[in-house]
Formats: sequence, structure tokens, C-alpha cells
Amino acid sequence: MTVKIAIDCMGGDHGPKVTVAAALAFVAEFPDAELTLVGHADRLESRLRRASTDKAVRDRLRVVHASEVVAMDEPPALALRNKKDSSMRVAINLVKSGEVAACVSAGNTGALMAISRFVLKMLPGIDRPAICTVIPTMTGQTRLLDLGANVDCTADHLLQFAVMGSILTSAVEHIAAPRVGLLNIGEEDIKGNEVVKQTAELLRATDLNFVGNVEGDGVYKGEADVVVCDGFVGNVALKVSEGLAQMLSRFLREEFERNLLTRLIALLALPVLSRFKKRLDHRRYNGASLLGLKGTVIKSHGSADVFAFSQAIKRAYFEAENGVIDKIAHRVSSYTGLQTAALLIDPAKDSAAMGEA
Amino acid sequence: MTVKIAIDCMGGDHGPKVTVAAALAFVAEFPDAELTLVGHADRLESRLRRASTDKAVRDRLRVVHASEVVAMDEPPALALRNKKDSSMRVAINLVKSGEVAACVSAGNTGALMAISRFVLKMLPGIDRPAICTVIPTMTGQTRLLDLGANVDCTADHLLQFAVMGSILTSAVEHIAAPRVGLLNIGEEDIKGNEVVKQTAELLRATDLNFVGNVEGDGVYKGEADVVVCDGFVGNVALKVSEGLAQMLSRFLREEFERNLLTRLIALLALPVLSRFKKRLDHRRYNGASLLGLKGTVIKSHGSADVFAFSQAIKRAYFEAENGVIDKIAHRVSSYTGLQTAALLIDPAKDSAAMGEA
Repeated sequence: MTVKIAIDCMGGDHGPKVTVAAALAFVAEFPDAELTLVGHADRLESRLRRASTDKAVRDRLRVVHASEVVAMDEPPALALRNKKDSSMRVAINLVKSGEVAACVSAGNTGALMAISRFVLKMLPGIDRPAICTVIPTMTGQTRLLDLGANVDCTADHLLQFAVMGSILTSAVEHIAAPRVGLLNIGEEDIKGNEVVKQTAELLRATDLNFVGNVEGDGVYKGEADVVVCDGFVGNVALKVSEGLAQMLSRFLREEFERNLLTRLIALLALPVLSRFKKRLDHRRYNGASLLGLKGTVIKSHGSADVFAFSQAIKRAYFEAENGVIDKIAHRVSSYTGLQTAALLIDPAKDSAAMGEA
Repeated sequence: MTVKIAIDCMGGDHGPKVTVAAALAFVAEFPDAELTLVGHADRLESRLRRASTDKAVRDRLRVVHASEVVAMDEPPALALRNKKDSSMRVAINLVKSGEVAACVSAGNTGALMAISRFVLKMLPGIDRPAICTVIPTMTGQTRLLDLGANVDCTADHLLQFAVMGSILTSAVEHIAAPRVGLLNIGEEDIKGNEVVKQTAELLRATDLNFVGNVEGDGVYKGEADVVVCDGFVGNVALKVSEGLAQMLSRFLREEFERNLLTRLIALLALPVLSRFKKRLDHRRYNGASLLGLKGTVIKSHGSADVFAFSQAIKRAYFEAENGVIDKIAHRVSSYTGLQTAALLIDPAKDSAAMGEA
């Protein structure tokens, strides 16, 4: 079966230079994939001509023209209203029409979210889309959601994130029952804010493999395959991690650059340090999933290079190939039932939970 | 002027072995300090006898007996109700009675908070105590609060944390107008949840040096001297940082231990790696301030060693010496006025803010 993916080639800090090169690299590696490159047709065609590409590979690439580009700092509402022929919008339209199974963009996150939500709509039973990314851990990797789409969440929202994260992980990583953890500030049930406590109750009533609360350090210890939190907390957790990693990397470099001797040692240690760096290479984890929509949309980091952007295309490929959207759609209805059942278990607690929702 | 500090010698994972040794090291270094060691008198006296101490140093240490110990996993409410003669409680009582200017404990955080609040009471104008710690940044260090004492905060609470954090930093670091940042998920004013947006409005109306929103990575970039957030977010940020630092340190070690050659390189690189490690040594940052109480209480990490615990005693010393409590008490009343003024600026927004409070 062919997996068709649309690429917003104009998005991101580097535009076609990166996106087209990544598309070519990807399509050469995945013989059952077909890519639709969306953007200024002349510029894209010209890049394709200049690349010395196999005919077999070239045949699996097509170009669709889009006359506009959403700027990286454009207010999402304006992009949604005014840029009907942007490369981002046209790529999402292709998902909507069913011509492709997924789309990838390195463009403006807010605009991508707003346009995806407007064009594709939410899956029944999901109130809001969530942003989900993969991060490395001591034992492998974990998926964290939400990362900033939702700053004021109810327990129902967090439950929906947990269900979506679990299904995504199960489908893509081929894990039967991914361990789902709830990001909290203590492992005991009594810890946390009200929303988190209510969410734990809801999660316990599902058939998800809920492993309970996970603390901040537990995320990197690999205590769960999926870690659920509201978008405010998830965004802070992710960005604090980025900042700390940058700081440690700078301090390490400074120490190795301190004097002639340390520079010599650095030269000797280069293979070791390179392996260390590669192991944590954030480009390998590029590509966040916008979950909860009636279609697969992957957000690449705006500054992604060719390698990083091709990783984002791979995420789109594996989500499409493994039918993540259908699986979420199919399960959400059953979870809505379960959740209602959970609410009936303890009417006193649930009136509060429902009030919150 | 003599600075008197009480030490809960029984708290923490190691008890008197660490606390008494740290007290001796501290008092030898600070000739104007006097320490009261609280705990099982026989055990403490015996440790003091075994240590070969100058008489001049020994004279500045006294022992006060306490017959009970709060266990590390004891529910705070039980510790508060049943352990009236615990070393923790007796140390806090000494602050209350004015016999000492501050106390330090490596014991159970929840119990320390509950007992401090019960015995010392809150400063007028402060609703809840906040936990504040120092973390290293690319440009120096910053203070982060709250770290878990308050999981559901209103804008008023966050405003109070900002005022207390600013005064503490100003007093202890001798910075006239510390830069105060609000931890958020974007730098723009429109970003964040409702509480954070309201807090920004309140902060802008104060005379604090409010530098606006700081994102997670901005904390480690040193964008502010004080970063304010609710306890849930702060706790996650701190523990995520701990987990990531542990992971990176483990990965670095693993790469250097990969084979004989890399071990040899590690041996050569040892001085560089040691400097790197020392620069990030979390023991240097040990000692969190419980702010908002009518007395100085410092919480040491439970697993602190002698060096780390002596750092916590130093924090108590500098807070007491610089009159942090009096400065907070003095300023809070004026801020209460300012805050009310801020609320009058935009009545529409403020009815919401007041409803929240």
C-alpha cells in the first residue's frame, strides 16, 4: 500500500532548501511512499531539477502550487482568515480531501493548529487537539503530551490526552499496553492539584495501563511510555529541559576549551563526546503529533535541518501507515462510555469532576 | 552582632552524623555565629566530644534536648499533632521564642512546612508560605519559587511570591532591583493560562523590576534573578531538571566507560570533567527557603552530606544576618496597597481577578 504525505515546503526557518532536500532523502529511503510538495511551484520544480534524482524516486514526488506563505510570526487567526492559498493550508486541504494520509509542516505552530482544527475538525469525543512529542529517557524514549496547545485543562481533557497518547504509542511502537503516567509532584495519590487528582480517578477506571503518578525526574527515568499533563506544565517541562541541556553542553564545551591542554584532551575525547552528543541529538526526536484531529498532522521544529525534517516526515509516515487516526476514532467512543461509568462509581466526587468539565 | 541559628540535628537521611559535622564546619568558618543543636542530647554531646574542636568554636555550640524525631515518611498532620517534642518542633519553637534567628532542617518537608506554619504563623499580607531555591544558570544563578507548597495558586499568591522572592534576592545578593520573571509558555503577554495573565497585570502595577514572561529555557539562560510560578509547575520544572541532569551525567559516564580506550581518555579528561561536575554540584545550591513565615526556616535536602548541609546553614545565616523577614514584613503592607491600586485600574478584569482570589 502506498503512503501519501503532503509537505508544506514553504514553512520553517529555511523553507524549500531544507524541506525539498528532506523530502528527496525520505522518498529514496521509503519506496512505498509518495510525497506531494506544496508551495511556490517554480521554486520547488527548480530545486527538484537541480537535484540529481533517480527517475523511480522522482516519480513519487509531485508538486502542488500554493501562492501564499504563512509567516512564522503571523497571528494564527489572521493566517486562518486571510491565507486561503498558503502552502500550509493547501497541504492540510489535501489531508481533508483524502488525497494524502498525512501532512508535515515546519511552519508557525499556532497557525498550523488553528488551520488544522478549522479544516480537519476534531474527532468525535475529543474536545481539543494536543501536541505530543517523543523525548529520550534513560531506558529508551517516552511520549509527552500536551506541550502547549491547552493551558487550562479539565480532567476530561487529560483523560482524552492519555487515551490518544496510549493509542499512538501502541500503534507506532507496537507496544500492546503502553505504560501511561500522570505528571505530578509526588507519587502518592493524595499529591497534586485538583485536576490531576480527578484525572487519576478517571484513568484508573479505564482499561489503559495506567501506572499512576510520575514525577518530573521519573519522566527521564523512563517510568512511563506516555506521560500526560496540561499544556502549560508540558511546555515548561520541555523548554526547561532544552535550556538545561544547552547550559550543560555549553559548560562542558567551556571546560574543554579552557586552555591548550584541555583542548588537546578534547581532541582525544572527540569520538567519545561525539557519541554522547549523537545519543542526545534532538533532531532524532523532531516531529510533534497534533493529536485529536480527523487527520494526521506533524509539526516539525521551525529550525529543523534536512536530517531533522526527514525525521518529521518519517513520523507522519509511521502514523499514517499504522492507522493511528482510525484507531483513536474507534477507541474514543468506547472510552467515553468508560469515563461515564467511572463518573458513576463515586457520585460525590463526580459532581465536582463534572462541574470542572 | 551574633547570628544565632537552631539546627534540627535528627532530621534527614543521615541525622547527627551529617548535621553535627556540618554545624562544626560552619561555626568554625563563621566566628559571629552561634548554633543550637537540637536532638537527643546524649548522642549530640557524644559526637561533639569525639570531634576535636577548638574551645572557641565549642563555646558557640549548645545542645538542646528533644526526645522525639519526625520520621521522613510521617504524615505532616500526625507529626504536627503528636510530636510536640520532636527536634524539628523544638528548633522551630526556638525561632518563635526569639532565642534564635533561624532554623535549618533536613527532615520531612511536609512536616517542616506544617509545623512552621502552625508555630510561627504567616506574615500579615501573605496567604501561604512558598518554597524558594537557588538554581545555577548560564550567567550565574536564579531563585525559583514556589516549588511545591502551593499547587493551586491565584494571581494574588503569585504576586506575593514575586514580592518575597525579590526582597530575599535583594537582601541576600545585594542587588538593588532583582529582575523578576513570570514563568510562562511564551514571551508575549497574551500567552499563558488565566492566572498567569492576571499575575502579569498585577506585577506590572508594582514597583518590582518585572521583566515579563520567562519561558522554561529562559530560566537557565538567566533571564531573571527571580522566577515565579505555582508550586505544581515549579516542582515539575525542578524535578525534570534533576532527572535530565542525571540522565546526561549517566550517558556521559557510559560513553567514557565504553571500552579500554575510552576509559583511558576519561582518565586524561578527569580534571576537565571534575571541573564540569563541580560547576554543577547541586550540593552548592542546597537549602530552600520557606518564605512568608514570621521566622526564617531553611529546608535542606534530606540526603545532604556534610558539605551540602553546611551550605543550608549558610543560607540561614545570610537570611538572618540580612534581616529578610523584617524586610518582607515591612514591604508586604505597601504592596498590598499597590495591588489594590492595580485592581482599580481595570475594573472589568479585576472583578475576575478578585473572584479568582
